[in-house]
Amino acid sequence: MTLAEVARVAGVSLPTVSKVLNGRADVSRVTRAKVERLLEEHGYRRRSRTSSQPALLELVFHELDSIWAMELIKGVEQVARENRATVVLTVSGTRHTPGPEWLGGVLQRKPLGVVLVFSTLPQDVKRQLRAAAIPFVVVDPAGDPDPDVPSVGSANWAGGLAATRHLTAQDHERVAIITGPEDMLCSLARLDGYRSAMAMAGLEVDPRLIRFGDFHVQGGFEHAMSLLDGPDRPTAIFAGSDLQALGVLEAARVKGLHVPRDLSVVGYDDVPLAQWSSPPLTTVHQPLRHMAEEASRMLFHRDESGKAAQRIELATHLVVRQSTAPPGQV
Amino acid sequence: MTLAEVARVAGVSLPTVSKVLNGRADVSRVTRAKVERLLEEHGYRRRSRTSSQPALLELVFHELDSIWAMELIKGVEQVARENRATVVLTVSGTRHTPGPEWLGGVLQRKPLGVVLVFSTLPQDVKRQLRAAAIPFVVVDPAGDPDPDVPSVGSANWAGGLAATRHLTAQDHERVAIITGPEDMLCSLARLDGYRSAMAMAGLEVDPRLIRFGDFHVQGGFEHAMSLLDGPDRPTAIFAGSDLQALGVLEAARVKGLHVPRDLSVVGYDDVPLAQWSSPPLTTVHQPLRHMAEEASRMLFHRDESGKAAQRIELATHLVVRQSTAPPGQV
Repeated sequence: MTLAEVARVAGVSLPTVSKVLNGRADVSRVTRAKVERLLEEHGYRRRSRTSSQPALLELVFHELDSIWAMELIKGVEQVARENRATVVLTVSGTRHTPGPEWLGGVLQRKPLGVVLVFSTLPQDVKRQLRAAAIPFVVVDPAGDPDPDVPSVGSANWAGGLAATRHLTAQDHERVAIITGPEDMLCSLARLDGYRSAMAMAGLEVDPRLIRFGDFHVQGGFEHAMSLLDGPDRPTAIFAGSDLQALGVLEAARVKGLHVPRDLSVVGYDDVPLAQWSSPPLTTVHQPLRHMAEEASRMLFHRDESGKAAQRIELATHLVVRQSTAPPGQV
Repeated sequence: MTLAEVARVAGVSLPTVSKVLNGRADVSRVTRAKVERLLEEHGYRRRSRTSSQPALLELVFHELDSIWAMELIKGVEQVARENRATVVLTVSGTRHTPGPEWLGGVLQRKPLGVVLVFSTLPQDVKRQLRAAAIPFVVVDPAGDPDPDVPSVGSANWAGGLAATRHLTAQDHERVAIITGPEDMLCSLARLDGYRSAMAMAGLEVDPRLIRFGDFHVQGGFEHAMSLLDGPDRPTAIFAGSDLQALGVLEAARVKGLHVPRDLSVVGYDDVPLAQWSSPPLTTVHQPLRHMAEEASRMLFHRDESGKAAQRIELATHLVVRQSTAPPGQV
């Protein structure tokens, strides 16, 4: 189906179809939706890029402050280089959803594809990207994928299980968890992994030992100060992120507790700083770089068969360093 | 002067001039040099970008692994956003010098400007960028600016002085320094700042207390293990980077020394992890993000008067946290 035919069926002019394709604002909402639906139904693909256009691979963050950002950039950069493309980095600015300004920009930049970190895409953004034939994939460490968008995540439940089993295998019985925010599926999955490991070891879970943090250092510090207060303190804490684990280490230092003799600590993520802490952190490796690589590769090797969106979940594994030991041992 | 005139004076065809402008490889070295010289002499500026070309600001690293990278990206992203441009991230791949592949790419991408981190630019790369009217600025934490390239650095000598004066003011007399590699000017400047502060305090410098590290954790750890070995150990170590300081903290932990009671530690850089260590690091703030912002702004507000290349040096300042105290005190 040509664009002229799309225009005829939609009952609009050819320039209007062109405006929709280029993400211009001066088209009514109703017309835009109608044209996009037709373009999508008829599998319209824009003409291949001219040789003068740079080959770009776009990576979208909602913020650059995340400790994850650098690992994800490295993964995307690797695959871009393999495909002779260049990385464009954009920041959507809002918590989860790229704004209309971003959409206008991406339609003008015409990247080979877009990797979104941890963003929920509104229906009209998905529709406009599809109409412009710009493929997109979500890297989703939060574990809450949009069902109709291809995404790459990692095994959060298995990670929580491995972290906790490592502690129970060392004869810890009072094991606390500081997981992430209560409204993120990855926090809940890690917590459920913890519960299963405790049950497998025949241990009761004391509900006072379950805390929801914010994935940041300060949250880890405050929950640990409270957990370590009093006689009945845990001998091990599974901190739901490496940053929270650093907060736990600082709380132990303030309380005069030796890690790992008096307190074992397990992190989550295995970002580079996990190996630089004192002592180096035992943690669950979340393959962030590999996740970004897989997401980028999905853009270059797309399944055009129209089947359901692909979801890949990569394995996590425990990395044992020096922050864990049986209770009372160094 | 038109391109046709450049072609006539150079004695080549117009398509050849166009090839030189677009960085194509199929032009002889001699011809390329001749055409570039003419383009440069006659102040040729390429036509302004067409509205369909995305406005890009290119940031070039030689590696993404640097602990500095994220701060620099944030600074460039900020200024790009202010100017409605988008950040392109490229990795030159070699130690200091962008390769020919990078050059071909940047000439095709036609960014509004290029911010290079810590790269020495060969003469022919400078000439080609100038011929294509692509402005460039170097962010240069190493303190070794190319005299004919605009650059932004920071005050390394003053940083070394401030770090060491903080320690001598607390009555430390045996103060060691682990500075960076001997072949980097920033290492030498910080060391000279240390020497001046020691002299100002009337203290002799024991040459055994001066070490050249590699700016990484392991180097800091190994030098600290050696410095802390024996009865005559220093009561304070000025580690030339935050990563080296983390290595010193780990050495203190292994040796059973309390920081700051038994050993004071000062870092350099003030990257985010400096506040997350146990104890939080006293360190010299190197304004990396601000340096990247200034470099990016120089691209948008260029001095076209033909004066000597601009060099900006931003101030450093000491941030006092909990890793320093007078000897024997907590």
